[in-house]
Amino acid sequence: MNHNLRLGDERRDVLQATFDTVTQVWEGFDKARESEPELTAATAALLAETLPEQGMIHTDALGQAVDVLDQSLAQSRPRFLAYIGSSGLEIGAVADFLAASYDINLAVDARAASTLEVQTSKWLGEFIGFPNARGLFTSGGTVSNITALAAARHRAVPESREMGNTGPMAVYVSSEAHYSNKRAVELLGLGTRAVRSIAIDEQHRMVPAALEEQIRADMAAGVKPMCIIASAGTTLTGAIDPLREIARIAQTYNIWMHVDGAYGAPAAGTDVARDLFDGIELADSVTIDAHKWLFVPKACSIVLVKDYAALAATFGHNEAYMPHEGEEPNPVDVTLEYSRPLRALKLWLGFKAHGASEFRSAITKNIELAQETYSRASVNASFRVLHHRPQLSIVPLQHIPHGMTDPEQISKHNAALCSAIEKDGRVFLSPAVIDGETWLRPCFTNFRTELSDVDVLFEVIEDLGNKR
Amino acid sequence: MNHNLRLGDERRDVLQATFDTVTQVWEGFDKARESEPELTAATAALLAETLPEQGMIHTDALGQAVDVLDQSLAQSRPRFLAYIGSSGLEIGAVADFLAASYDINLAVDARAASTLEVQTSKWLGEFIGFPNARGLFTSGGTVSNITALAAARHRAVPESREMGNTGPMAVYVSSEAHYSNKRAVELLGLGTRAVRSIAIDEQHRMVPAALEEQIRADMAAGVKPMCIIASAGTTLTGAIDPLREIARIAQTYNIWMHVDGAYGAPAAGTDVARDLFDGIELADSVTIDAHKWLFVPKACSIVLVKDYAALAATFGHNEAYMPHEGEEPNPVDVTLEYSRPLRALKLWLGFKAHGASEFRSAITKNIELAQETYSRASVNASFRVLHHRPQLSIVPLQHIPHGMTDPEQISKHNAALCSAIEKDGRVFLSPAVIDGETWLRPCFTNFRTELSDVDVLFEVIEDLGNKR
Repeated sequence: MNHNLRLGDERRDVLQATFDTVTQVWEGFDKARESEPELTAATAALLAETLPEQGMIHTDALGQAVDVLDQSLAQSRPRFLAYIGSSGLEIGAVADFLAASYDINLAVDARAASTLEVQTSKWLGEFIGFPNARGLFTSGGTVSNITALAAARHRAVPESREMGNTGPMAVYVSSEAHYSNKRAVELLGLGTRAVRSIAIDEQHRMVPAALEEQIRADMAAGVKPMCIIASAGTTLTGAIDPLREIARIAQTYNIWMHVDGAYGAPAAGTDVARDLFDGIELADSVTIDAHKWLFVPKACSIVLVKDYAALAATFGHNEAYMPHEGEEPNPVDVTLEYSRPLRALKLWLGFKAHGASEFRSAITKNIELAQETYSRASVNASFRVLHHRPQLSIVPLQHIPHGMTDPEQISKHNAALCSAIEKDGRVFLSPAVIDGETWLRPCFTNFRTELSDVDVLFEVIEDLGNKR
Repeated sequence: MNHNLRLGDERRDVLQATFDTVTQVWEGFDKARESEPELTAATAALLAETLPEQGMIHTDALGQAVDVLDQSLAQSRPRFLAYIGSSGLEIGAVADFLAASYDINLAVDARAASTLEVQTSKWLGEFIGFPNARGLFTSGGTVSNITALAAARHRAVPESREMGNTGPMAVYVSSEAHYSNKRAVELLGLGTRAVRSIAIDEQHRMVPAALEEQIRADMAAGVKPMCIIASAGTTLTGAIDPLREIARIAQTYNIWMHVDGAYGAPAAGTDVARDLFDGIELADSVTIDAHKWLFVPKACSIVLVKDYAALAATFGHNEAYMPHEGEEPNPVDVTLEYSRPLRALKLWLGFKAHGASEFRSAITKNIELAQETYSRASVNASFRVLHHRPQLSIVPLQHIPHGMTDPEQISKHNAALCSAIEKDGRVFLSPAVIDGETWLRPCFTNFRTELSDVDVLFEVIEDLGNKR
C-alpha cells in the first residue's frame, strides 16, 4: 500500500468515494436535519488514538473522516444561525479541491493564478461599489484588519517600522466594533489604552460628532490619531456606521479610514441595502470576508486599498531568496503572509458559475428572512426586539416568559435558553450581550436557509422557552 | 440555471468533471512536464473580463479554471525546486474538499472536529519529539510566529496588552533567520531596532556565545529580552541553530524560546536528521508548517506551546456573542484568528491513510536527493558548493563558467542564469544571496521529486549556464 504519499492504485476508489460522499453531503444540506447527533463511542475512541505509524485502506480512512465531520457543527447546515459565517458554496468547495491539488503559492509571480487574484479583487470592488482599488486575499478578517492598521500606522508614523511605536497613538472604533479590532491594536503594541470607543446612537451606529470631539481632544493632548475603523455591519446587531460623515472627518484631519465590512460589505451590492453603505468609496481600505456573506468556504478574506504603494511601504523588503523583477511589488511585499494559497479561485469560480446576480439574490433573501423574523417577533408577546428593524441580517431577540418583567431575570432566562437550544440541536444560536442584557441572536448568512427554517426557529424558542 | 447558489441539476456533471480533471492533474504530476506553457491569448482575455453578472454552464466555468491553473506555476510539480513549499498531497486535497463542504468553524467548540484538531496537534508533537504540548493550527508560519511572539511579549511585559510596548525590548534571531520574524517584530510595534541579529558559524548556525553576550549587554542597558527565536531549518541554507545550548541560555535568563521550525521541524521525525534537533523539546513554542515539509496543501501551520495558559493570557477576552462554557478556553481565546477552517483534517487524513512512516520516508528521500545534489556538484568543476554538506534539503550552488574567477562576475552570472532557468521552464529555481553572493538554491520538499529530476536539474544548469 506504500505509494510514496500518492494514492496510487487507490486513486480511482478514493475519488469515487469522495464523489459519492460529497453528493450525499450536499443533498443532506439541501434540508436541515432534525437534530445534531451525539459523538459516538467509536468516534470518541478514534479521536483518542495516538499517531498511526502505518497507513490504512484509504477509503476506510476517508470514511472515518466523514464520521468525524458528520458529528461536528457545520456552518453549511441551513439552521446554523449562530455566527455570521459561510456556508460552503458547492462550486467553492470544488475550487478548493483544485487549488489544493495544484497548491500554487501566490507569494511571488505564479503567472495566470496571480492575474486571477488581481481580477477577482477588482470584481469584488465592482460588486460592493469600491472602484479602482487593488485588493489582496488574506486568511481572514483579523489579518485583513491588521494589514490595514499596519498601513495606517506607517502613514501616521513612517519611522515606526524601524523605531517601533514612538509615541501615543489612537484608533477610533464604535463601542460595538468587532473585538478583532481591539485584538489588532493590542498586537500592534499600542495596548487597549489606544482604543477610543466612540458612542453609538439608538441604531448602534457610531456618532460622528462624538468621533470628531475625541479626535480633537487627542490632538490637543499630543496623541496621534492613527486610524478610524468604521464598522459596516457590526457583529452584534449588523449596524453600519455613517460612512460618508466619517470619511469627511477622516479627510479633515488626514487620518486613515478603514471600513471593517468583513460581514456586511457584500450587502452593498444589493438594491435593498446599497444606500446604507453610502460613502464606502471614500475609505482608504475595506475588509470583506468572502467566507462570510459571499458564501464561499473559509478562509477567503480580502483587503481592498486605494493606495497600493502604502502597503508596499509598510511590508516591502528585499528578501535574499525572492526574485524581484520589474516595477510591480510581489504580493509578499504588500501583505503579511508569505505562503499564500490561491484563495481567490473559489470566489472567481463562484462568480463565473452563478453570476453576481445570484449572489445579490441570496444576500437579499437573507435580509428578507431577517426582516420576517423581526416582524414575527415584534407582534408576538413572547418576544422582545430592538426598537429598530435590522439594518442587515442579524436579529437580536429576547424570549419573554409570561409575566416575567425583571430585565436581569429575562437575561438569565435567555442565556439558559440559548444553552438549551444548543443542546436540543434543531437550530443553533449564539447569545449576544447588548447594553448589558443577554439576547438570542439569529444571523442569516447562509444561502441554504429557508422560510421554513424560520418557522422552526420560532417553534424551538417557544417550545424550550416555555418549558423553563 | 438559477439554483440559488447550489449546483442543482448540474451537480452530477460538475462532480464527474472534477473527478476526471483531478485524475488527469494527479497523473500529470506523476512526471514532470518538459516545459511551462505560456499564457494563451484566450486565458489572458478571460482574466481581463469584468465581473460577470450572469452565470454560465458550470462545467464550462470549471474548464476555464483548470486552464488558468495549468498556466500557473504549481508547487505540486516535481521539478518546482524554487521555494520550500508544499506539494499538494492527494489525500490532503480530498480533505480540503470535504472541509470546505462542511465549512466548520473552529473558533468555538465544533464538537468532533475540535477534538480532531487537538488530536492532530498532539500527533505532530509526537512526530517531531515535542511531547505534552498543545497546538493550534494557523494560516501560516508568519501567523504562528506572531502568535508565539505575542505570548512571549505578554510574559516579558504583562501590562503590554493594556499599555502597549512600554519600554525597549529585544528579540534575538540568527542573522539568517527568515524575514517573517523581522516582519513580526515590526508588526508588534517594536521596530527593527529591537531585532538582534546574532552571528552565525561556518555552518550558518547561531553562535550561542554571541547570543549570551548580546543578552547581557541588553540587560545592562535596560533593554528587556523578550524572545529568542531559534531557526530549525533556515530558508537560505537549511541551517539548524544549536537548540540545546540556546535553551540553556533561555532558561538562565528566563526568556521565552521560540523555535521557528516552519520548514525544518518535520525532519526531526526522521532517523537521519533527528539528532540535529536535540533540545527542541525544551522550547516554549515551535512553529511547523505542515504545508511545507509534511506535503499537505497550504495553508496548514501549527504553533505548539508548552504553556497553553500563556496563550489564553495573551489573547483571551469575553466577547459578547461567544458562548464560554466550562474551564477550557475556546480556540478564539488562544489564537489570533476568529474564523478558523478545519485545517487539521488534511494532516489527520494524511497520517491516517499513509501512516507516519511514509512521511518519514518521503522526508528522508528529500534529504538524500539534497545530499546527492551536493555530492555531484562538489566533484564537478562547473560548480561551487558551500563548505559543508546540507543539514536538511536545501543545496546552494553556484555555476562557474570555465575560467571565471571574479566573485562579483560569478554572482551576476548566476543571477542571470536563474532568470534564464525560470524562462526555460524545465525546472524552477529561485536565487539566494548568501554572504553577499548570488547562488542558485534548489530545495527538495516535494514528495514527487525523483533522482531523474536531479539529472535534469544539472542538465539544465549546465546547458543554459554554458550558453551565456
